[in-house]
Amino acid sequence: MNFLEERIIKDGIVKPGNVLKVDSFLNHQMDIQLMEEIGREFKRRFADKNITKVMTIEASGIGIACFVAKEFGVPMVFAKKSKSVNISGDVYVAEVESFTHKNTNQVIVSKMFLNNDDHLLIIDDFLANGCALKGLIAIANAAGASVEGLGIVIEKGFQDGGRMIREMGYDLESLAIVDAMDAENGTITFRAQEDK
Amino acid sequence: MNFLEERIIKDGIVKPGNVLKVDSFLNHQMDIQLMEEIGREFKRRFADKNITKVMTIEASGIGIACFVAKEFGVPMVFAKKSKSVNISGDVYVAEVESFTHKNTNQVIVSKMFLNNDDHLLIIDDFLANGCALKGLIAIANAAGASVEGLGIVIEKGFQDGGRMIREMGYDLESLAIVDAMDAENGTITFRAQEDK
Repeated sequence: MNFLEERIIKDGIVKPGNVLKVDSFLNHQMDIQLMEEIGREFKRRFADKNITKVMTIEASGIGIACFVAKEFGVPMVFAKKSKSVNISGDVYVAEVESFTHKNTNQVIVSKMFLNNDDHLLIIDDFLANGCALKGLIAIANAAGASVEGLGIVIEKGFQDGGRMIREMGYDLESLAIVDAMDAENGTITFRAQEDK
Repeated sequence: MNFLEERIIKDGIVKPGNVLKVDSFLNHQMDIQLMEEIGREFKRRFADKNITKVMTIEASGIGIACFVAKEFGVPMVFAKKSKSVNISGDVYVAEVESFTHKNTNQVIVSKMFLNNDDHLLIIDDFLANGCALKGLIAIANAAGASVEGLGIVIEKGFQDGGRMIREMGYDLESLAIVDAMDAENGTITFRAQEDK
């Protein structure tokens, strides 16, 4: 097990309905030393890429993306959720469905902060159905920026997002892939990943 | 001028209606080296406080609060905006009015992550009317936690929030206090602060 899988086993809580609560260290309260370790690990995994910018989506991706961007020495930009029906022409827009909240958000990135010279590393805390990542990829494509890689902290391997993103040809790295969870006895089964 | 005032003069954009756009380095795209410098500066200003946790509110406070928490070597917790009408009993709740979005959000913090042993440093990117800070203070009070200080990156000194929070007796430090802005010629007037 890597450091993240160990932490999930230690402090993650499995709830009915395939819910994995990691809000004591990842997405509500944040363990900053863990964030720094995650940043270093993504830097190691994408060390051969010439990254110019890290991109994520608000809110819980922001902290992680900050520490990844710190390792690469580049700026971070986060897509903002927008309720406005009138989106001005100076932003890239994507629709992102939320299964948690059962709604669709428009997410936007200002055209000032992405262009066709950018080589992006896209970061997020969770990957399940892949809607958020596909929205961020659509924004990158609209800007003409290249997506050099995608880094996810926890992938729900029993949902479709990871498979779809990999089949699209993207270099997707997930620090932990949860293949199964059992709320009755609290067990979590991780997918074996070759030693990266 | 301190490093932040200099950066605001260099890259901030004054828009009509007393709007200061700092989204190229602070709250949409983030300059990570600047975030680190902000973290060190708040550590310096609150060096005599025994901080156990940094608290902020999603979304744009998260990145800054992460780097402040890193300096203090403590966890960070962010209040989440919640649309749920049914808030469960395991969270602290506050109402936060947003003048930007002309609505009221409930913000919540899990009771697991705040208690009466906590000594909090509350961090946010902007202070205008003070609604967000007052919501965070209400949550701290509900938890019985002590608010050791509040650190703001940019305070709009011509709005009421800063004065109100200081009159309540809190130790509020703003790295830059904007007393006036002129959209016609782009000038920004900072309040003189004693050398901290």
